[in-house]
Amino acid sequence: MSLSTAMFRTRLAHTARRQLPARRWYAAGVSGDVGKDAKAGQPLLPGIDALQLQVNKTASPKQLPAPGAPLLFGRTFTDHMLKIRWTEQAGWEAPQIEPYGTINLVPSAVVIHYAQSAFEGMKAYKRADGNVTMFRPDMNMKRLNNSAARLALPTFDGEQVIELLKQLIRLDKEWVPEAPGHSLYIRPTLIGTNGTLGVQPPTEALLFVICSPVGPYYPTGFKPVPLYGTTEYIRAAPGGTGAYKLAVNYAPGVVAQKAAASAGYQQNLWLHGPEHYITEVGTMNAFIVFHDADGGLELVTPPLDGMILPGVTRDSVLALARGHAAGARIEGMPVGKKVRVSERPVTMEEVSEASTSGRLVELFGTGTAAVITPVEKIGYQGSDVLIPTGPGGMGPISGPIWKHLTGIQNGLIEHEWNVVV
Amino acid sequence: MSLSTAMFRTRLAHTARRQLPARRWYAAGVSGDVGKDAKAGQPLLPGIDALQLQVNKTASPKQLPAPGAPLLFGRTFTDHMLKIRWTEQAGWEAPQIEPYGTINLVPSAVVIHYAQSAFEGMKAYKRADGNVTMFRPDMNMKRLNNSAARLALPTFDGEQVIELLKQLIRLDKEWVPEAPGHSLYIRPTLIGTNGTLGVQPPTEALLFVICSPVGPYYPTGFKPVPLYGTTEYIRAAPGGTGAYKLAVNYAPGVVAQKAAASAGYQQNLWLHGPEHYITEVGTMNAFIVFHDADGGLELVTPPLDGMILPGVTRDSVLALARGHAAGARIEGMPVGKKVRVSERPVTMEEVSEASTSGRLVELFGTGTAAVITPVEKIGYQGSDVLIPTGPGGMGPISGPIWKHLTGIQNGLIEHEWNVVV
Repeated sequence: MSLSTAMFRTRLAHTARRQLPARRWYAAGVSGDVGKDAKAGQPLLPGIDALQLQVNKTASPKQLPAPGAPLLFGRTFTDHMLKIRWTEQAGWEAPQIEPYGTINLVPSAVVIHYAQSAFEGMKAYKRADGNVTMFRPDMNMKRLNNSAARLALPTFDGEQVIELLKQLIRLDKEWVPEAPGHSLYIRPTLIGTNGTLGVQPPTEALLFVICSPVGPYYPTGFKPVPLYGTTEYIRAAPGGTGAYKLAVNYAPGVVAQKAAASAGYQQNLWLHGPEHYITEVGTMNAFIVFHDADGGLELVTPPLDGMILPGVTRDSVLALARGHAAGARIEGMPVGKKVRVSERPVTMEEVSEASTSGRLVELFGTGTAAVITPVEKIGYQGSDVLIPTGPGGMGPISGPIWKHLTGIQNGLIEHEWNVVV
Repeated sequence: MSLSTAMFRTRLAHTARRQLPARRWYAAGVSGDVGKDAKAGQPLLPGIDALQLQVNKTASPKQLPAPGAPLLFGRTFTDHMLKIRWTEQAGWEAPQIEPYGTINLVPSAVVIHYAQSAFEGMKAYKRADGNVTMFRPDMNMKRLNNSAARLALPTFDGEQVIELLKQLIRLDKEWVPEAPGHSLYIRPTLIGTNGTLGVQPPTEALLFVICSPVGPYYPTGFKPVPLYGTTEYIRAAPGGTGAYKLAVNYAPGVVAQKAAASAGYQQNLWLHGPEHYITEVGTMNAFIVFHDADGGLELVTPPLDGMILPGVTRDSVLALARGHAAGARIEGMPVGKKVRVSERPVTMEEVSEASTSGRLVELFGTGTAAVITPVEKIGYQGSDVLIPTGPGGMGPISGPIWKHLTGIQNGLIEHEWNVVV
């Protein structure tokens, strides 16, 4: 079984429940058995169990952001956080909801020295009916488990963590903003915490979750961004970690972002190999739309080849576009024209030629934070490759898909992707 | 100026000293000016100044390790640690020596989420005359500054930090072990600490130093290790961070180490590209010795091409071998034979063919923790490539160089590389 598909399968060992009846169980050695079932004869250790949750409410709630105040991304945090500790010897401990506060690490903690850290970005939305929903949390739990396995961090039962997220969000429900385009950004993070300075699988870990109310990523509306095609630095390479949401994928990209900004571009476009394959847009997945030879449109995104993050927004855009092509029509999407969806490599040469010939329709990034970000040009090898942009900044595919997707997220359109908190 | 050579040049701005006379200064915006001098007109901010050191001694010293007790790598830490905080607005604050204790981070700290962390591994040795010396600390300070610049972390005046290291080691001098092969391992670490969840240059940072008394890495003597040639995972790639000592280079390697161990090998050998170029041995630099066509020996290590860590031990081995070739004879090294030193790429095919033909003399890893690690075989594509090993585990080059190098480090051989604490 390959690492990218490997996930630990939680076992409910009913026979062992007599010893510790109230706990969920998993087989020990999971962090030593990436992609394999636990070996026979290994002891069972406690898994994450939402029923064991202990809640310690804050005695001094913070002031809620004033209605209408700008909520910049990732600067304001709610009153509480979730913490679940793990040790190699004793498995997952009882989950704790505590007042938001510092994480105290021994100075030799492996997360500090060797970056043993995986995380997720998720959102919860307050609907007009007052309900709060999370968007496709199962996808995030699956990916966090895959990320954990890539770093030999412990894996866990995602359903239990979703239940705990619900309880955390319920407790801090007044922090979920109501205004259009606002949401509660949720950041589950899993780190190695043991303090032995060796490059080894962590023997102690902490899964914690913090929440941040956020306003629209582009508060003044969609203004297509200029990108700089980065050829000096890489984000990922075959055999690396680009397909996982790991801390290690981010720090090295800051210099590329700075170089893009110095050259007058807002973000950078990650290109791979001598062919300059388009891989990702800053911290977002990349989508390109071409005119097809038969008069239709082709919506393209790079394939999940081990270098591309399997984004939840990426997956949602693909699903909606494929659904539209199959007849589940999305309002505003071209109807006379066939929309073909492809996961295939695209080079800068293809985009550049399509820009010149008129075959290029649009190019955009997708991600949880900004949902969809249209692009207006790419600085590439000394000149700018121009990207068509539609009225209001969005193109003929990204516009209707953005409207439909955010309609689902905000509860205007019913969809099974929404999970009520 | 390329990033790899970029270093911030500290300026002592004498004219500005009138305002804040006791502080050393540097030009603001350094983390935004990788490899460039500060722009004219930018305000000067305080640099690290050893004269500002504040010492808060522990009230409850820990028990020293019992003489003769085994000191496993990175598990025991001394009584004190050094901390120096930095902010974008105010530069470097006064250095603090404090009792060894936890580092308390906001849960959104960038080091946790985006791995903004660079570190060093250094050693101090207690000599027979009672003096304690550090080995080539200037090399570590230079590399830590290069690493910091790669991540847009703040840079600093390495000489000031060396002075602070001296004071820290003097305070904890009873922790420097005296037994042969023992030393004090020193871990300077620089992390981004601000709590804004954006992938940006850190606006707050902490440089801290912890120290750990360590015994010989191989307490039972040199036993050449079996390596597994890793082709499924990468350590580094062009445009990445392999040439810098960053946290991000370590977590992704744990699964490769686990795969090597599962296959019955002690460590893994990092191979690059379809040619399977030898790059590094686990967390060490790689050296290979071949018989030359003219009857001499060729000592080869991969070149500093952007993927190889510029190891201090690597540099020292090269310097000693080149010195020997130039006449500064190393005891035990072949004298009749010419020893040629090369920094050039080596493929597994070359090593495999040399193993079969008898041209291969030895292969070893170098690093601060273990100094020199001889290799006995490489598991590669289903079979083992055998490496000759000499009496006592070491080969004809590694043995004499190890003896000479550790002789310098232990003070038996006088050398300018030793810096008295």
